[in-house]
Amino acid sequence: MEKGQLLYEGKAKRIYATNDDSIVWVEYKDSATAFNGEKKAEITGKGRLNNEITSLLFSKLNELGISSHFIKKLSNTEQLIKRVQIIPLETVVRNVVAGSLSKRTGLPEGKELSQPIVEFYFKNDALGDPLFTEDHILELNLATKEQIITLKHKALQVNEALTELFNELGILLVDFKLEFGIDGDGQILLADEISPDTCRLWDAQTNEKLDKDVFRRSLGSLTDAYEKILAKLGGAAHV
Amino acid sequence: MEKGQLLYEGKAKRIYATNDDSIVWVEYKDSATAFNGEKKAEITGKGRLNNEITSLLFSKLNELGISSHFIKKLSNTEQLIKRVQIIPLETVVRNVVAGSLSKRTGLPEGKELSQPIVEFYFKNDALGDPLFTEDHILELNLATKEQIITLKHKALQVNEALTELFNELGILLVDFKLEFGIDGDGQILLADEISPDTCRLWDAQTNEKLDKDVFRRSLGSLTDAYEKILAKLGGAAHV
Ligand SMILES: Nc1ncnc2c1ncn2[C@@H]1O[C@H](COP(=O)(O)OP(=O)(O)OP(=O)(O)O)[C@@H](O)[C@H]1O
Ligand SMILES: Nc1ncnc2c1ncn2[C@@H]1O[C@H](COP(=O)(O)OP(=O)(O)OP(=O)(O)O)[C@@H](O)[C@H]1O
Ligand SMILES: [Mg+2]
Ligand SMILES: [Mg+2]
Repeated sequence: MEKGQLLYEGKAKRIYATNDDSIVWVEYKDSATAFNGEKKAEITGKGRLNNEITSLLFSKLNELGISSHFIKKLSNTEQLIKRVQIIPLETVVRNVVAGSLSKRTGLPEGKELSQPIVEFYFKNDALGDPLFTEDHILELNLATKEQIITLKHKALQVNEALTELFNELGILLVDFKLEFGIDGDGQILLADEISPDTCRLWDAQTNEKLDKDVFRRSLGSLTDAYEKILAKLGGAAHV
Repeated sequence: MEKGQLLYEGKAKRIYATNDDSIVWVEYKDSATAFNGEKKAEITGKGRLNNEITSLLFSKLNELGISSHFIKKLSNTEQLIKRVQIIPLETVVRNVVAGSLSKRTGLPEGKELSQPIVEFYFKNDALGDPLFTEDHILELNLATKEQIITLKHKALQVNEALTELFNELGILLVDFKLEFGIDGDGQILLADEISPDTCRLWDAQTNEKLDKDVFRRSLGSLTDAYEKILAKLGGAAHV
């Protein structure tokens, strides 16, 4: 497989073409951003950590029968992934109240939800990634009614698998964001990344935050937090 | 029927007890507020206009088989209404893009929607009346799944009736906000008001705004606009 031209550079990753039309090469960057890009930093090692953690999680999900775009880890910061057309929705699953759900509802951070909540946000930086209802999604033709049902179903499946996985490691999966895409066969495929950038992960004993909130709220060393997650997942420590 | 003690004073109306436990006395005020109370004014005649228009609209809906809390108009600014326990949701129906839907989706104001959209906002000034999905409503126990279906159904019924009614008068019903309550028998009843304070009404020929946006956006005389609506509805002109 050959690394081709840069197709797209996002806030956290670069996507390159390969000599296979259906496969792209992703490179995890050391950039951290929050609040729709308002807060920014370069954090050495973050790209490696998110690449390792995402690769481990997608592999574990695959073992549990939940397929994704993940093909294989190439290096400390690189993966091969199936190319998809990303559906411009951030699918958020929540088990515990935190962040914008607390702001929206007035429920206290840390309150366990009576059942997992799935939310959709329009993936649109200019509009600030607004919350969308099903009607909004349909009006903008972002997905069909059937696709919305599939997204919810898959998101809840991922939630069950990850909740159990993290629970066994003494970590509470508070919430997380998924992206899905349409592959060459028109199938909906889990894509993007699953990392402490896209999950809220709290130490189940101490409630210590081990995710991007460390950066958002300036709570300490982001790489220390991410290293803890990687170590618990059985990943290779930094050499 | 006797007017009893003041039970509640909102931004636009005062609610009084009566000697019948199941009936309250509502008085429409001359206050105008917008942006969650940030913009305020006293506008002489507004109370009368909204009382007249709401009374006319609830009467017409009743004739069409859509019942509400409305019992009868008492005076220029007063009505008798059935007392309900208000469900703390603002049920918004939209036919054309305007206001926050344009901000949220990026769709241009004035674009006709492919089908009416029903949205729910949590009626909570402190939180800024945030958009809620069904999951949020359920988590906060604001309504049951069945009640949400009923609210949507009733809201769309009101939309059909009002759209036709205003259409015949040369007015485009862009969107509107409803409140529902639970009556003494546990039934969901249409409540609150339907007025240019709670609807977006555009002259179908000129697109002139004949609703509270005149106040929100300082577009001219609010009472002139509301008088036009009242006159088209066949209401009594000011004497
Ligand atoms: N399998 C895939 N095929 C194609 N694109 C993908 C795939 N997985 C993820 N992407 C996209 O790669 C892009 C780069 O990722 P990154 O996380 O850096 O983006 P972002 O800055 O978070 O979001 P964006 O740049 O889209 O606003 C994102 O647009 C993401 O949706
Ligand atoms: N049939 C009814 N029975 C009881 N209360 C009602 C009824 N219809 C409307 N209300 C309530 O009367 C109150 C006063 O109305 P008003 O429009 O002034 O309130 P508001 O300022 O818009 O909202 P609020 O004060 O509730 O934040 C509102 O809380 C409304 O929900
Ligand atoms: Mg991203
Ligand atoms: Mg009101």
